[in-house]
Amino acid sequence: MSLFSSRGSRYRFCGMLMALACSVPVCSGLAAENRKVIIDDDDSLSLAEATLLKAPGVDVLGITVASGNRWRDDEINRMLRGLEILHRTDVPVVPGAIYPLINSEKLTEKWESLYGRLIWKGAWMKQWVEPTNQPDPNYHAPDFVPTPADGNATTKPTKEIAANFLIRMVHAYPGQVTILAAGAMTNLALAERLDPEFASLAKELVYMGGSLNPHQQLSTVAAGQYAREFVNSPRREFNLRFDPEAASIVMHAPWRKITMVPSDPATATELSADFLHRIASRNADISKLVAHWQPGSPMWDEIAATVWLNPQIVTKSTQLYVDINTQFGAGYGDTLSWSPGYQPDLDEQKETVVETINPTALLATMEQILARP
Amino acid sequence: MSLFSSRGSRYRFCGMLMALACSVPVCSGLAAENRKVIIDDDDSLSLAEATLLKAPGVDVLGITVASGNRWRDDEINRMLRGLEILHRTDVPVVPGAIYPLINSEKLTEKWESLYGRLIWKGAWMKQWVEPTNQPDPNYHAPDFVPTPADGNATTKPTKEIAANFLIRMVHAYPGQVTILAAGAMTNLALAERLDPEFASLAKELVYMGGSLNPHQQLSTVAAGQYAREFVNSPRREFNLRFDPEAASIVMHAPWRKITMVPSDPATATELSADFLHRIASRNADISKLVAHWQPGSPMWDEIAATVWLNPQIVTKSTQLYVDINTQFGAGYGDTLSWSPGYQPDLDEQKETVVETINPTALLATMEQILARP
Repeated sequence: MSLFSSRGSRYRFCGMLMALACSVPVCSGLAAENRKVIIDDDDSLSLAEATLLKAPGVDVLGITVASGNRWRDDEINRMLRGLEILHRTDVPVVPGAIYPLINSEKLTEKWESLYGRLIWKGAWMKQWVEPTNQPDPNYHAPDFVPTPADGNATTKPTKEIAANFLIRMVHAYPGQVTILAAGAMTNLALAERLDPEFASLAKELVYMGGSLNPHQQLSTVAAGQYAREFVNSPRREFNLRFDPEAASIVMHAPWRKITMVPSDPATATELSADFLHRIASRNADISKLVAHWQPGSPMWDEIAATVWLNPQIVTKSTQLYVDINTQFGAGYGDTLSWSPGYQPDLDEQKETVVETINPTALLATMEQILARP
Repeated sequence: MSLFSSRGSRYRFCGMLMALACSVPVCSGLAAENRKVIIDDDDSLSLAEATLLKAPGVDVLGITVASGNRWRDDEINRMLRGLEILHRTDVPVVPGAIYPLINSEKLTEKWESLYGRLIWKGAWMKQWVEPTNQPDPNYHAPDFVPTPADGNATTKPTKEIAANFLIRMVHAYPGQVTILAAGAMTNLALAERLDPEFASLAKELVYMGGSLNPHQQLSTVAAGQYAREFVNSPRREFNLRFDPEAASIVMHAPWRKITMVPSDPATATELSADFLHRIASRNADISKLVAHWQPGSPMWDEIAATVWLNPQIVTKSTQLYVDINTQFGAGYGDTLSWSPGYQPDLDEQKETVVETINPTALLATMEQILARP
């Protein structure tokens, strides 16, 4: 019980910090910095991207995509359309990997026959195992591009592929580029194997991925349904499970700094109808962006983006060595972590792991940024 | 947060049940039943054994031992000595397996070099990785029997080996014998492979083993130190990790009923100096038994024994299919579980999994039973 009461006090403490932070514009100190970031993602343009695009002093060099939640070409169309709605077609969308390094749809079906059904399979998902209010999967071929509710994009992605773009950017701005990864890590792994200087030339890696020991914290129907993803598999998280080998390559690369945002802190959050209404009411572009969205999802990527913009939302973090299980077995793609002194010393890296955040501070930071013109 | 408040209300509900149960002697309904149990364990005689030995209407047919926390012969000496102190030398101590089926001390050291240091290795433990108040490991050869603080036993174990004893008992009392397993499952697996009728002839299996998603609940120093066992490995639990292949054999056997008591509910408990003092003050034999004990340990086996004696201490349970990972890799020995509909259907069994218990009711039940002459 003491854990919960101490968390309560941390929340209050952070509330004070946040009040302080909000007495001046959030991130006002960042404006002069011109922080450079490349977002690597696997879905539509989310509030994570929107917040980064609107944050003061942040230069989004590009958005690279790889298959994961959706097939890559579906993602490109949606990401471009999102940028059109936000009037940010200056930001390049860069096509990445269509397929993971080793993992595949067929392999995943064999895996399930041996080790049990997965809750979520992204682009490979045909139907839910049990009834849910979550949106139905839209299963289709890799090269089919369905028309989204807000229409098809008219702009085009770059000709350059993601791994090359990533390498070119860190060489152009050595030590200055943050890689904010919110999907499978195929593009980052390819970049690192094409150019072993890639990771060390970046400023840092901040990623949403992996899972330690999440527990359901909210009592909504949606929270209960999303909890199915971890209740019997606390170490499995979709982004890193989709391409375990790529994730393990990235976890062994010599980054200057790594911040892990696992699924754990997201259990305190839910994209609510109220929050969508609030941000829509303050900005016409955002209103258009979220017009067809359903509430209910944990705010996984939004936390990663906002932790980078405003580290004060973090209420508890720890230092752990991290790797991803690449052995084809029951634990394929599971997060492995070690407190210092227990790690196998096979060049796995020490990471700053975000364990809990202040959900009120998260929403306040996002709301303030998303209201900007 | 709702989870915690709902647990609060379950506690209150259970408190009422307990008050009801205690208005008549605990387990008074059991006296006529003459419930038969064989305890399979891997350490000294604990309060789990003591509670079962003193419970009204319970017939402990024998205590089988296998290596785990200690080497088997060390355990036999301690278990016999405990029975002498309790004047229960009528209960046979039955020697079981000295070695797990496949796992070994050497294999474990290779495993650690690849996958990281284990927190606890039982009989194979040479030293703690980091400083702790937990008792120092007493590393020695399998056939060396150290003299315990309360002296060596003068009584002897049976000539019959554990697997044969287990098989003989379930044939002698078909459908009547509960197997209460609190250590590695080597003896049970050998019994099942020697006689495929073994599991189905037992009444049920109740076991302390496996781990779902434990979280530290108490704020004591000891609770923090024991939490190291699961904080980076929520699916690893020592009993089943010591002999994963044996555990998987047992998880696939056709038991009539299986109750799993994983490490999760034990995070709400700690063997306190106060409780040791209370039970010692009410019974001279118990006072002698616990004279040299250190407080601080979670009450893993005591929960399993008491759940069987008084199921009302359970505040939350669920039905899951369960197996143990036998692949030699990062997840070797980890608990695998599936909600119905997700299991691979390879004859893994559906188990009743105890998720939370009422610690006050646990202690009240034990205290009342242990006070008996």
